[in-house]
Amino acid sequence: LEPQLDTSPTPAPSDDDSLVVDELRDAWSILSIDDRAEGFRLLARPDAEDFFFTLKAHDQQELILHLPSAERRSWMRLLAPDDAADLVQDAPPEEREPLLGLLDEQTRREVTALLAYAEDNAGGLMSPRFARVRPDMKVDEAISYLRKQAKERLETIYYVYVLDAHQHLDGVVSFRELLTAPVDRTVRDIMHTSIVTVHENMDQEKVSQVFAQHDLMSIPVIDNDGHMKGIVTFDDIVDVVQEEATEDIQKLGGMEALDEPYLKIDFFRMIKKRVGWLSALFISEMFTTTAMTHFEEEIERAVVLSLFVPLIMSSGGNSGSQATSLVIRAMALGEVKLRDWWRVIRRELLAGLTLGSLLGLIGLLRVIIWQNVGFYDYGAHYLLVAGTICCSVLGVVTWGTLTGSMLPFLLRALGLDPASASAPFVATLVDVTGITIYFTVAMAFLHGTLL
Amino acid sequence: LEPQLDTSPTPAPSDDDSLVVDELRDAWSILSIDDRAEGFRLLARPDAEDFFFTLKAHDQQELILHLPSAERRSWMRLLAPDDAADLVQDAPPEEREPLLGLLDEQTRREVTALLAYAEDNAGGLMSPRFARVRPDMKVDEAISYLRKQAKERLETIYYVYVLDAHQHLDGVVSFRELLTAPVDRTVRDIMHTSIVTVHENMDQEKVSQVFAQHDLMSIPVIDNDGHMKGIVTFDDIVDVVQEEATEDIQKLGGMEALDEPYLKIDFFRMIKKRVGWLSALFISEMFTTTAMTHFEEEIERAVVLSLFVPLIMSSGGNSGSQATSLVIRAMALGEVKLRDWWRVIRRELLAGLTLGSLLGLIGLLRVIIWQNVGFYDYGAHYLLVAGTICCSVLGVVTWGTLTGSMLPFLLRALGLDPASASAPFVATLVDVTGITIYFTVAMAFLHGTLL
Repeated sequence: LEPQLDTSPTPAPSDDDSLVVDELRDAWSILSIDDRAEGFRLLARPDAEDFFFTLKAHDQQELILHLPSAERRSWMRLLAPDDAADLVQDAPPEEREPLLGLLDEQTRREVTALLAYAEDNAGGLMSPRFARVRPDMKVDEAISYLRKQAKERLETIYYVYVLDAHQHLDGVVSFRELLTAPVDRTVRDIMHTSIVTVHENMDQEKVSQVFAQHDLMSIPVIDNDGHMKGIVTFDDIVDVVQEEATEDIQKLGGMEALDEPYLKIDFFRMIKKRVGWLSALFISEMFTTTAMTHFEEEIERAVVLSLFVPLIMSSGGNSGSQATSLVIRAMALGEVKLRDWWRVIRRELLAGLTLGSLLGLIGLLRVIIWQNVGFYDYGAHYLLVAGTICCSVLGVVTWGTLTGSMLPFLLRALGLDPASASAPFVATLVDVTGITIYFTVAMAFLHGTLL
Repeated sequence: LEPQLDTSPTPAPSDDDSLVVDELRDAWSILSIDDRAEGFRLLARPDAEDFFFTLKAHDQQELILHLPSAERRSWMRLLAPDDAADLVQDAPPEEREPLLGLLDEQTRREVTALLAYAEDNAGGLMSPRFARVRPDMKVDEAISYLRKQAKERLETIYYVYVLDAHQHLDGVVSFRELLTAPVDRTVRDIMHTSIVTVHENMDQEKVSQVFAQHDLMSIPVIDNDGHMKGIVTFDDIVDVVQEEATEDIQKLGGMEALDEPYLKIDFFRMIKKRVGWLSALFISEMFTTTAMTHFEEEIERAVVLSLFVPLIMSSGGNSGSQATSLVIRAMALGEVKLRDWWRVIRRELLAGLTLGSLLGLIGLLRVIIWQNVGFYDYGAHYLLVAGTICCSVLGVVTWGTLTGSMLPFLLRALGLDPASASAPFVATLVDVTGITIYFTVAMAFLHGTLL
């Protein structure tokens, strides 16, 4: 069993030992690394290999380094170059050279070349092992040439790339098309010449968008001169799509992306990823105290005003959170581009006014009902208090919606990641303004009565 | 050019007209449906076909219904049964029968069978067109049998499923393995018998986890009796993974999932998806007013306390947002299971105490510095005020972190979607308790002095 994606359609464990494998898989996340290595070594070799391939690079790396030195080589050599590169990249710096040394000459060269790319661009994802033919081969020549290549460790033989003598990508043909073409035609006659390619430096999120748009099994990676360097295959992309969504969700939650599974990341590394944003937000939020101080006199005169501060503030934060989540996700999917900001602002202005009117109305009714049922006595001017709440909520919700929808655009225009416009970030921005809006409205409504 | 995923590796437009296609693709999202149909009809047929395949089911459906009746048939017939089923499902009810009528007899039967499945389970994703052989075929027989099947409209010929006379799935073999096997062996000799399968009713999120775990190109779908009904292919899964992440991100933002692209969804349908949660949160948040009312006397005696309410509350909301985002994503990826709640609670308790101490310290310093620099006069008891802020922040952050991490577990245990534990939901829960914690701590610290 080899690591290529299309050699073995059945990485499931064999029936007899499937229980052991399943138990190990289930317990994996809670086992210490020593227990993992021990459990792993209990597996029969074919099961162990199947299991090994389903692990992420991080776990493979930890596991290999916890096996006796003599056993490491055979596991390293099972890996395709792109997977071996991921593993080496994940290993502690001092272990990288020894791990590379376990590989055979050719693979080591390939892996070293891959390590030169950033982990999160097309070059870092690609495998250099793709099926290739020359344009002037006859169809039957090409088929038997590929049958030979099929025995090597290629990622896939089902897309066949047509390269000239200078490694320039001339065309592509599927194995299926070769199979059904007349045998005396040349590859050039049947190949496709307009090809979806990605540049070696393209970011992996962009690469995944190209995959989502064209239902392809693999996409060739080319350099500036049109030389083909490798292929990115769909199985790497499923991981990328999940990885990118995880990063976005964590950033939206108001922290740095963990880049490691939640239960596995070292506690203090996790705290480090969380404390930065949390402190920054806390310090920014201190401006609310400054803003409140500014209205201290009003609060002293009408303490009733302070009772509604949390309600007003949270309505701005919540509506901002909705708007920013919508816009960030639409940007990540490529549905909304920078130039769409004007359409989004119009849409969200209208949405903010609509939602704000509705919530404002609820707030108005709250005060009127509480007053008339006798839950609380807002005094003779309770209608003015109700009006203050209603108009403040309308203003704050509209402002929160606009801020939440525009912050991702602003961040992107500045070259930053729009996903940093987290719900807490937006809420913090809106809170200070929210307090100002609230007390300004209150002064307009209550001047001469309560204030 | 046919719609199979492996027939044509090159859905890129031909060079001459690529400009027109690119322009249409770029402008697509802002064009009215009439302009879309008009632009589409300007394309040369091969370009139009390439372009058509890159559209989502919803856009394909709208487009087809805006073409003259006579042109619809050829577009419907281009589609594979699973894509045709998606399109029909998306069409207005009164258009479904006429659209089905455009298909040929066999495809119509297949599509009708697929329409019986829920859209978001394995049955709804699968295609019934897979390559099949019998276990007693010789390898060379199987290859020539497959070469014939390769000309039909199969999803893929690269995984070949071995079915007995009763459509029971006996094994699977890759085309590549057939190519490299000795020609006089039977399929049974070389097939794999332990197979990764999914049940026809498995939820699509689970299916995508199976894909992410095993790097497979396609997975067979079976019913209760082990009969093979179809295959789910990787290209559908990339879409599923994105769709599920979009739903989670939107729910985390505190609303219902839109299920449609942001710029395309009808404005009032969008408002409907947002207003429910927003109103529910607003009404719940009114308990903060009730809580504040409870401490009205204290506020009147020490207005200074009200100045810190927004700061204290937001620190709880922000730390809760971090914890809930982490746990929800780890659950969606299958990293954290229901039974892990105890490990998570210990981890987050410690995280909450650590983060809370740090923020509390910052709060303490704020009061001491402001007092000594002279920005604000907290009076003779400013150290007690500082202590109140410090301990309240510690309590509120710890409580926010615990609530945020446990709410997804609670929702899942109740059979609800953990992703509903949105940042705004957690913030709202924490706000009411936060106020209570704050004023209780204040009374302990300030009793006999300010209070």
